[in-house]
Amino acid sequence: MKIAVLRERVEGESRVAATPETVAKLIGLGAEVSVETGAGDLSRISDAQFQDAGASIGASAPTTLKGADIVLCVRRPAASGLAGVNKGALLIGALDPYGNEKDVAALAGAGVAAVSMEFMPRITRAQVMDILSSQANLAGYQAVIEAAAVFDRAMPMMMTAAGTVRPAKAFVMGAGVAGLQAIATAKRLGAVVSATDVRPAAKEQVESLGGKFIAVEDDEFKQAETAGGYAKQMSAEYQAKQAELTAQHIAKQDIVITTALIPGRPAPRLITREMVESMAAGSVIVDLAAERGGNVELTQPGRIVDHNGVKIIGFTNVQGRIPTTASQLYARNLLAFIETLIDKKEKKLAINWDDELVKATVLTRDGAVVHPNFQAAAAPE
Amino acid sequence: MKIAVLRERVEGESRVAATPETVAKLIGLGAEVSVETGAGDLSRISDAQFQDAGASIGASAPTTLKGADIVLCVRRPAASGLAGVNKGALLIGALDPYGNEKDVAALAGAGVAAVSMEFMPRITRAQVMDILSSQANLAGYQAVIEAAAVFDRAMPMMMTAAGTVRPAKAFVMGAGVAGLQAIATAKRLGAVVSATDVRPAAKEQVESLGGKFIAVEDDEFKQAETAGGYAKQMSAEYQAKQAELTAQHIAKQDIVITTALIPGRPAPRLITREMVESMAAGSVIVDLAAERGGNVELTQPGRIVDHNGVKIIGFTNVQGRIPTTASQLYARNLLAFIETLIDKKEKKLAINWDDELVKATVLTRDGAVVHPNFQAAAAPE
Repeated sequence: MKIAVLRERVEGESRVAATPETVAKLIGLGAEVSVETGAGDLSRISDAQFQDAGASIGASAPTTLKGADIVLCVRRPAASGLAGVNKGALLIGALDPYGNEKDVAALAGAGVAAVSMEFMPRITRAQVMDILSSQANLAGYQAVIEAAAVFDRAMPMMMTAAGTVRPAKAFVMGAGVAGLQAIATAKRLGAVVSATDVRPAAKEQVESLGGKFIAVEDDEFKQAETAGGYAKQMSAEYQAKQAELTAQHIAKQDIVITTALIPGRPAPRLITREMVESMAAGSVIVDLAAERGGNVELTQPGRIVDHNGVKIIGFTNVQGRIPTTASQLYARNLLAFIETLIDKKEKKLAINWDDELVKATVLTRDGAVVHPNFQAAAAPE
Repeated sequence: MKIAVLRERVEGESRVAATPETVAKLIGLGAEVSVETGAGDLSRISDAQFQDAGASIGASAPTTLKGADIVLCVRRPAASGLAGVNKGALLIGALDPYGNEKDVAALAGAGVAAVSMEFMPRITRAQVMDILSSQANLAGYQAVIEAAAVFDRAMPMMMTAAGTVRPAKAFVMGAGVAGLQAIATAKRLGAVVSATDVRPAAKEQVESLGGKFIAVEDDEFKQAETAGGYAKQMSAEYQAKQAELTAQHIAKQDIVITTALIPGRPAPRLITREMVESMAAGSVIVDLAAERGGNVELTQPGRIVDHNGVKIIGFTNVQGRIPTTASQLYARNLLAFIETLIDKKEKKLAINWDDELVKATVLTRDGAVVHPNFQAAAAPE
């Protein structure tokens, strides 16, 4: 059982799909691990550290991949770059299939079983494999650090001999995993933090972190709040009132962090040009949805835009800006999944293709696109 | 009584010596205030905001300065740039006289009374005028933010579904105003913080902020600790033991912040090349003494050096990287001093040249260098 770890080819991808910690554990499970030279460089893991953990170092992608049963990656590699792997080898990573149906079909054509970790079911036993959560958590942290770095004021309240400095006001839009970590980090740095979410049930979580929940708290809200969860769609009338409240709130903020992403869809537009223009010069917006088009009308993916003195940070792959931590957690997510694919007594691959984790994540198998979300798209090819 | 506020000419100086808040108060004291156009731009204060506070806007330095009795600045302007001020006008700012004796003599030649705010006595009534403290405090905060921004890991301990992320280890060298704020900020961000200082009495302050004090705690240390204050010079033997302990400690740190500055002298060397090379790749050093040559052997002022993967941040004027807050406090420091120079009933200048604050800070008067620290240097000219 050979596991290959590729150096990432996508521009700006600093993470790596294994660490010395996970390599040692994979070897303990009976695997032979080959890591492409330089794969860990940007995450501060040297070839020597991988070797110390028991991996061999492949001088090139083909050498690394030759005879592999499992290929680990962060971003989806080109199907053409996978030559030499065993027939039916698993390709496991953040394969980002939506909008990339042709590439998924090409992976099918290459004969690999492509596993998209983003589709891991959100059930208890799979939490440890949840790359979306582990990476979103870090993105939420780093969003606040990026904001603080370009902000031209101190974040916390400071009581000095020369008088008081007021704390920054930070507003987090979307109280999912990234949003909650952004709230926690902004609180750590002493900001006055508020947040909002389309789910009234998020109010309790925001408040438990010390944030103020911003919402029109009418009867409809109160009913939805107790109903909880993702379910309730609020009325158009409610949404209009809420949008108005949010717009007024943004105008008074120093820092806004947007975190609204819907898998497979363009990012929803939360902040218009007018809302940016309502903010004071010196304010900072961090758009964590930049890679999907952005929550902010003026976001330019990969750049910091300065619009009338308001900085809009549109970095893509924000978690990749703390690659050492991001790789550490990502590699653990992959390891936890691989553990379910191995017979620990026999020390060999024993994939249960009917396991709900496997069924939910496998995109391609035996030369075909098999995932229900992509079969239709693949059919006409 | 006219007060002029200059736009800063020194490259990279983003601060301004007055804010709308202090302008309004100076006007309340009977002053007419003229602000050079664009003076507040980098601190996010527009000409219009200064005008709203009651200032007039000078289209150029000469227009702004014409007839001024007091000139406010951050950095020392060239004497040639002060033409048009009233005879004997006060020039108040961070004049940085050490090593710049010729420029001080030129200010004497220009007939201004140059007031170096760095020399403000450290007595209770002058705390509110202490620019060294107000700016060092912000530099200490920003040093941690800069470190977090380039650090390739998250700072706090994180308990995630994919396991724990260990907190960063941060070490602060020098527990003065900047060092104590750096300790507090690194603690806010969840780092495990340690610190050291040549003054054993600093141990208590470091510990009160949640930091671990790093020192050889032998009998000599314990005696010095209770003696307190700046006084005690430790023995050469003690210093050698302490240096050895510090070197071992640095090798295990993720982030080191150095803050050792001695007024008028080159920065003491705290970290050698070998000590940098003992640190793991990915570590970060912030050298707050870069402007004075640096506490770190490899520091390059104004730059981030990458030495075997250890980043050494040598930004000068770190407080100027949060210019809005830095200007706010600096301007308040100057205002507090100016208040002591004005007869509040008569609403005019009434300088008591024998006041200890004035005596301590005035470098030049009536065409001569009068400050005792600079008379010798000026004499041979």
